[in-house]
Amino acid sequence: MKIITTVKELKEYVKNIDKSIGFVPTMGALHQGHTKLIKQAREENEIVVVSIFLNPTQFLKGEDLDKYPKKDEADKKICQLSGVDVMFFPSVDEIYTDDEVSILAPCVRGFVLEGFSRPGHFNGVLTVVMKLLNIVNPTRAYFGKKDAQQLYLIKLMARQFFMSVQIVAVDTQRESDGLALSSRNVYLSKEERQEALKIPQSLHLCAKLVSKNIRDRDEIVQKMKEILNPLELSYVEILNRNFEVIKEVELGNSVVLVEAKVGSTRLLDNIWL
Amino acid sequence: MKIITTVKELKEYVKNIDKSIGFVPTMGALHQGHTKLIKQAREENEIVVVSIFLNPTQFLKGEDLDKYPKKDEADKKICQLSGVDVMFFPSVDEIYTDDEVSILAPCVRGFVLEGFSRPGHFNGVLTVVMKLLNIVNPTRAYFGKKDAQQLYLIKLMARQFFMSVQIVAVDTQRESDGLALSSRNVYLSKEERQEALKIPQSLHLCAKLVSKNIRDRDEIVQKMKEILNPLELSYVEILNRNFEVIKEVELGNSVVLVEAKVGSTRLLDNIWL
Repeated sequence: MKIITTVKELKEYVKNIDKSIGFVPTMGALHQGHTKLIKQAREENEIVVVSIFLNPTQFLKGEDLDKYPKKDEADKKICQLSGVDVMFFPSVDEIYTDDEVSILAPCVRGFVLEGFSRPGHFNGVLTVVMKLLNIVNPTRAYFGKKDAQQLYLIKLMARQFFMSVQIVAVDTQRESDGLALSSRNVYLSKEERQEALKIPQSLHLCAKLVSKNIRDRDEIVQKMKEILNPLELSYVEILNRNFEVIKEVELGNSVVLVEAKVGSTRLLDNIWL
Repeated sequence: MKIITTVKELKEYVKNIDKSIGFVPTMGALHQGHTKLIKQAREENEIVVVSIFLNPTQFLKGEDLDKYPKKDEADKKICQLSGVDVMFFPSVDEIYTDDEVSILAPCVRGFVLEGFSRPGHFNGVLTVVMKLLNIVNPTRAYFGKKDAQQLYLIKLMARQFFMSVQIVAVDTQRESDGLALSSRNVYLSKEERQEALKIPQSLHLCAKLVSKNIRDRDEIVQKMKEILNPLELSYVEILNRNFEVIKEVELGNSVVLVEAKVGSTRLLDNIWL
């Protein structure tokens, strides 16, 4: 496995290979959610590139940038064992300078839900993703469905900017009890870890209600909130796959999203119906 | 010469050729400033692509989008006679949808001078340029020095987003009396056309003062304004080539910029010292 730290060297490497490239951009602290992405990239491409870059511009002031888990050595081992060809490990100065041109998330779909709780967050996400995609120039790039709005906006950006990369969505990896894997789960105390299960349970209830032919958005959200009580909720919402509000669940075209705070940890989850 | 109107067809065309591509993006109403860009692209590349797209997002409300000169048939002839291989002629719907991801010009260098007179203008310019560069995927793209700040910001975007295109700056084409060529010159009445000469005259004076070893920014700007009087000035400024304010002209690293209104027509010009 090659470890590359400069943009110049990575661009050089990419220029000289004529093979399909699967790219998995991460912020490090890799878990089985990431290895699932890497595994799929490994299956579908000749070369796999994983980036580890804790992107400062997607954190708001006062968020957990400074305490975000760092596990560089473990990450390297995981990548090596997962058959990664190249790890890209740039410093912040390698990616950003001063007074930058940046990407602005769309006014409507970029500033609702997660974009409403964290204004500016998606600008930072889209900016770094565009930069990384331009550096790596992959055939396919892999993103988890857990960050559903992020995935949606990245797909939108790739389409609206006529980028040639294919954005691949990968199912959320869960613990055996249903909790979605997240690098932020390490923040949870034992009790909070238990409380956090209300999130997948609420989504499970939603799926059950829909299977019983209940389709009304308000009714479903109401019942989900009863399960989620007393967690502090940023949102519980049902959208179509174009991220527009709907009144009734449409099978095959809906996403149900929850963001809740457990202790001081913000957790996201969703199901695609 | 091929005329292509859809993104899909152009991407297909580009994918299937393995030659250097020179790209000249324009808003149409071609004049000898454009043909100078095309000529240089022709000399330096195997394939030349010219786009004609009157980009709505770079016009502010109340600006001249609706009355901007359109000369589609003449443009086609000019391209044909200039040895262009492909004219790209997309509709607005081909380039833009609703609720778009967009490019935000840098907070400092994107919102001074022209960006101050026309807030949002450069966001629209950078957005369409990024889109067009992603569609055409050229080896080199050609821009005129007349729009110095635009050229600077496009270079900055290409660098900060690690784009592989080479941005080529081409000298301003002038009439025999010194007026910089611009599609907007057709708006000028005979008297205004005469008044407009004060702009190149002020730049000529600036060059003369510098050649006499006068370097002080304030002194030079003051003398330029005397010549420009009574035109309505948006700015007369001297910057270094990194678009930062300087107190003294540094030879080889300065740009002197003027924006003035002649009648209701906004005209730009500059010299690089």
